[in-house]
Amino acid sequence: MDTGSPRKTEETTGLLRGSERIDDLQRSGLRIIQDPKGNRFSTDAVLLSSYCRAKRSDRVVDLGTGTGILTLLVWAKWHPRSITGIELDPPTADMASRSVKLNGLEGHIRILGGDLKDAAALLGKASFTLAISNPPYIKHGGGLEGDSGARALARHEIGCTFDDVAKAASELLVPAGRFALVHRPDRLADIICSLRSWGLEPKNMRMVHTRASEPPVLVLVTSVKGASAGLKIGPSLLIYGEDGKYSEETNDIYFGE
Amino acid sequence: MDTGSPRKTEETTGLLRGSERIDDLQRSGLRIIQDPKGNRFSTDAVLLSSYCRAKRSDRVVDLGTGTGILTLLVWAKWHPRSITGIELDPPTADMASRSVKLNGLEGHIRILGGDLKDAAALLGKASFTLAISNPPYIKHGGGLEGDSGARALARHEIGCTFDDVAKAASELLVPAGRFALVHRPDRLADIICSLRSWGLEPKNMRMVHTRASEPPVLVLVTSVKGASAGLKIGPSLLIYGEDGKYSEETNDIYFGE
Repeated sequence: MDTGSPRKTEETTGLLRGSERIDDLQRSGLRIIQDPKGNRFSTDAVLLSSYCRAKRSDRVVDLGTGTGILTLLVWAKWHPRSITGIELDPPTADMASRSVKLNGLEGHIRILGGDLKDAAALLGKASFTLAISNPPYIKHGGGLEGDSGARALARHEIGCTFDDVAKAASELLVPAGRFALVHRPDRLADIICSLRSWGLEPKNMRMVHTRASEPPVLVLVTSVKGASAGLKIGPSLLIYGEDGKYSEETNDIYFGE
Repeated sequence: MDTGSPRKTEETTGLLRGSERIDDLQRSGLRIIQDPKGNRFSTDAVLLSSYCRAKRSDRVVDLGTGTGILTLLVWAKWHPRSITGIELDPPTADMASRSVKLNGLEGHIRILGGDLKDAAALLGKASFTLAISNPPYIKHGGGLEGDSGARALARHEIGCTFDDVAKAASELLVPAGRFALVHRPDRLADIICSLRSWGLEPKNMRMVHTRASEPPVLVLVTSVKGASAGLKIGPSLLIYGEDGKYSEETNDIYFGE
């Protein structure tokens, strides 16, 4: 689907603030505003955008949307009915809104500045069919060296804990609604127990390894609201093959349609 | 360590009942009594015996010991201070005891017929430093087709649930004692939440895959009593390499010292 041709520089520079710049997402002509001094998107968002398998009928909510990268990537790949991103940090939420405008996607993606702990009050309970999140990975107190401002908020559980994210997902989802997330393997016990405590049953999981012989670097989990127990763990997602090149699956995720 | 040379046939046949036979464990000269009509040991026990990393100082308890295979393999590999196996099914417990006798290991391995739900009362709270278990995998009601008797008890959660096993481990272990188990990946959420609810924090996990490209077939988990959160997921254990032969690690586990 054509999401609009790139606009002229003079039309986009008005959307930039301070040290921000526009990066090409190499996907459906989409671009994103990022601040090289702030938190920039990484593999995690790309992998989750593919793993979440949004349907065309889905009303999607992205919990802690940051720069809005997940909303853009999910839109480009799946074209769901709508995507709402909620972001606590006002300047970051504003930057995400400008990225949506830059791509002319205001009719499909909405960025809401606010606290996901208030998400059910702001957006309405049971308003979404799919929640997605690339939440802060590091437990509060896990060392803030080198991180500050929006970058610290995105990486550390300062603004919210994983339990807050799971609670918000549970409240926002319809019965049988799905919650797809990416996180670090060392937090897996926290994630699984927290999801369950909010009635979100882990139903699918994939480990992400750089290479087959190495420990996982990320974990992708889909839980389903109100489902019965039973977890399907898929094959590991291997970023690189034995030959040291991107695996076929990585190539598909990054460069496939 | 020499665990005793194989004995003559006339000395061992008195230990057999009905259709039982003696199988060579191909390890330190150890042998086991098994019933071809019953539940025989498999890869699971071999992998767990290697994964559990018993120390020479460990007092080990095996929860649901079945034929006693884990007690024999753990003894052969690690020579801990003592191993106690508890088994609900009287004929199976008796068979395990005869295997211990067959190998002349009565001074090191003790088989107790009894219900692991009563284990703390039978064996004393906080009496062990390492618990191990290859528990029934299948949730009660998960289909009993083709299984009956001891085989059904070993495979289905009839005699005990995983929660019973976790509770027993928690009660039997000293503070900071470890509980190493093997289970099926589809039960991972149940396992993690149950362990935590009994104060056993999952600290180490490995997925077992037949091949790198396939979903995991087993999961190995070590939890530690009273430990803080933080799960280290190791590299996946791959049974076969890309060349279709046993991987180096599998060879080490099966044929290494």
